[in-house]
Amino acid sequence: MTSVQVTDPADFHVHLRQAEFSKLVTPHVRQGGFSLAYVMPNLKPPITTTDQALAYKAELEKIDPSVDYLMTLYLSPDLTPDEVRKAKAAGIVGVKSYPRGVTTNSDGGIESYETYYPVFEVMEEVDMVLNLHGEVPSDPSTNTCVLNAELAFLPHLIKLHSAFPKLRIVLEHATTRASVETVKTLGSTVACTITAHHLAMTVDDWAGQGWNYCKPVAKYPDDREALREVVREGHPRFFLGSDSAPHPPHTKSTSTPTHPCAAGVYTSPILLPLVAHLLESFGALDKLNGFAGGLGRRFYGRQGKGETVVLRRVEGEGKKVQEEWKVGEESVVPFWAGKELGWEIVEE
Amino acid sequence: MTSVQVTDPADFHVHLRQAEFSKLVTPHVRQGGFSLAYVMPNLKPPITTTDQALAYKAELEKIDPSVDYLMTLYLSPDLTPDEVRKAKAAGIVGVKSYPRGVTTNSDGGIESYETYYPVFEVMEEVDMVLNLHGEVPSDPSTNTCVLNAELAFLPHLIKLHSAFPKLRIVLEHATTRASVETVKTLGSTVACTITAHHLAMTVDDWAGQGWNYCKPVAKYPDDREALREVVREGHPRFFLGSDSAPHPPHTKSTSTPTHPCAAGVYTSPILLPLVAHLLESFGALDKLNGFAGGLGRRFYGRQGKGETVVLRRVEGEGKKVQEEWKVGEESVVPFWAGKELGWEIVEE
Repeated sequence: MTSVQVTDPADFHVHLRQAEFSKLVTPHVRQGGFSLAYVMPNLKPPITTTDQALAYKAELEKIDPSVDYLMTLYLSPDLTPDEVRKAKAAGIVGVKSYPRGVTTNSDGGIESYETYYPVFEVMEEVDMVLNLHGEVPSDPSTNTCVLNAELAFLPHLIKLHSAFPKLRIVLEHATTRASVETVKTLGSTVACTITAHHLAMTVDDWAGQGWNYCKPVAKYPDDREALREVVREGHPRFFLGSDSAPHPPHTKSTSTPTHPCAAGVYTSPILLPLVAHLLESFGALDKLNGFAGGLGRRFYGRQGKGETVVLRRVEGEGKKVQEEWKVGEESVVPFWAGKELGWEIVEE
Repeated sequence: MTSVQVTDPADFHVHLRQAEFSKLVTPHVRQGGFSLAYVMPNLKPPITTTDQALAYKAELEKIDPSVDYLMTLYLSPDLTPDEVRKAKAAGIVGVKSYPRGVTTNSDGGIESYETYYPVFEVMEEVDMVLNLHGEVPSDPSTNTCVLNAELAFLPHLIKLHSAFPKLRIVLEHATTRASVETVKTLGSTVACTITAHHLAMTVDDWAGQGWNYCKPVAKYPDDREALREVVREGHPRFFLGSDSAPHPPHTKSTSTPTHPCAAGVYTSPILLPLVAHLLESFGALDKLNGFAGGLGRRFYGRQGKGETVVLRRVEGEGKKVQEEWKVGEESVVPFWAGKELGWEIVEE
């Protein structure tokens, strides 16, 4: 094949930040080939009300009105059942749960789910989606660390689904074979996003390499293989959510003895070519259209306009990923900076 | 207890580098409380002959003549049985094996052990020690990565011991419960070094944190617990080898999208206080004398002069670890820079 096309590419998990940084990264959704962005609420302060979410959406639309922004709220004790109804009526799609302290801006995250059952009941009733960052905090006394934090979360997922079988739940950015197998066993209301970078990396790629460090961390080669297998299978409940998470370059390149690198990998500006490149590498290029658009849209019930994005194969060594993007004082370095991709978007 | 003493502290695994950098770090052996340094041969080029090892030893003695340097050769196809006899006669103690490409300056490392059986036969005969970096190279097709590279090495250790039961073998810088349990089951000729930093860290500590990145990487909390348990037990074949490995600070603090941080943690200048601090934290301070001196000396048959180093408890918040050491153009940042240690060496 020398070209491939994707209808209405949709990224069901992306961080678009705020203020000046947002002006740099928001246009990259479209540049990366996507017309839908499912927007994470972990700003400072987090998006916890309908009004905040709508104001944020307006800001994003001002930057690039050509993208369909699906908005989410940050699960916290501030979120009431009434607010959920209000959010639903205002077109807000989901509620994102962050376990406390496990990733960027998650200090206000949740500690246990039972507290939120009244909220989940209303979410189930009005059909709002629950988006789960599926990790528990590290705890040496139970042998829990970044490597098995996702595994230890799975009982919570199973319990939530059992308590709210009609609630649509998405396990975000799954990284392990256990997660893939667990989600498969659950009902049609439970789906799973997979990032591009977790289809590419294992633990070896972030060992000593801050640019590749993200949460959840990439795991064993066999875990990566499980993610690749479920994409190759074209399973309808597994689809792309990039978790593209921009950080100022110095926070990625540098650690001090007291401060680690920022967690997050940035893929937005190269997302569709990157996904095509990766899927081709493991024999799943024929699943690109579903994985990067159709399947997620079907789960979320969010039809596109039927716009087609065409990718063409790059002859020779491939197209080099740009080293950096800048706007004013802000800059950002993408995943795979300087590496070659075998596919590029055909500009109209 | 407000003071504790250690007789003839001995570090059975340390990197003293070469040229100007060596002049900075070699005096830190004594500063850290130690009078014996078991010196690694992975220089550029590696130490592969008796003459090179003796020349290197002379350089180290010129920098600090007060330390007993035990020298090693780098296992490679250049090492002949005759050279082993010559090395033994010249007082060289061990031969270090690096699997190819798994750590700093290991590009010339070994790929399979059978090739070296004639060398091992002579080593066994003349009683030279085989020091093993116990990791296999990563291989996604067999699910091998930095997390299970040590586990996958253990069959090689078992096979070597079975083929050469009288050959003294040291599994260096063990990081896993599996390694501890395996070494325990083997005969009295097989020992194991443990670093200070692996008694302190888990995978969470080096995730996104280049300063804490080393090979083998720190593993799960339960693995760390196994290391602590065997120290607490005072098992005679488990003793300190710091694997203290200095690197220029910019190679630790900074990664680029194409270059990871250097692998290695530097503990020499604070080693004995750090080990005391750690052993106390898990209830093994009474094992300090054996772990940091006596047990290793007994295994290697290397008696000290009976010099005693006294450590005293630091009142209040502890003594802050110096942020950096410099000599001329060279500098180095220690593990736990800026953190507090509860013990300090009493200067005479």
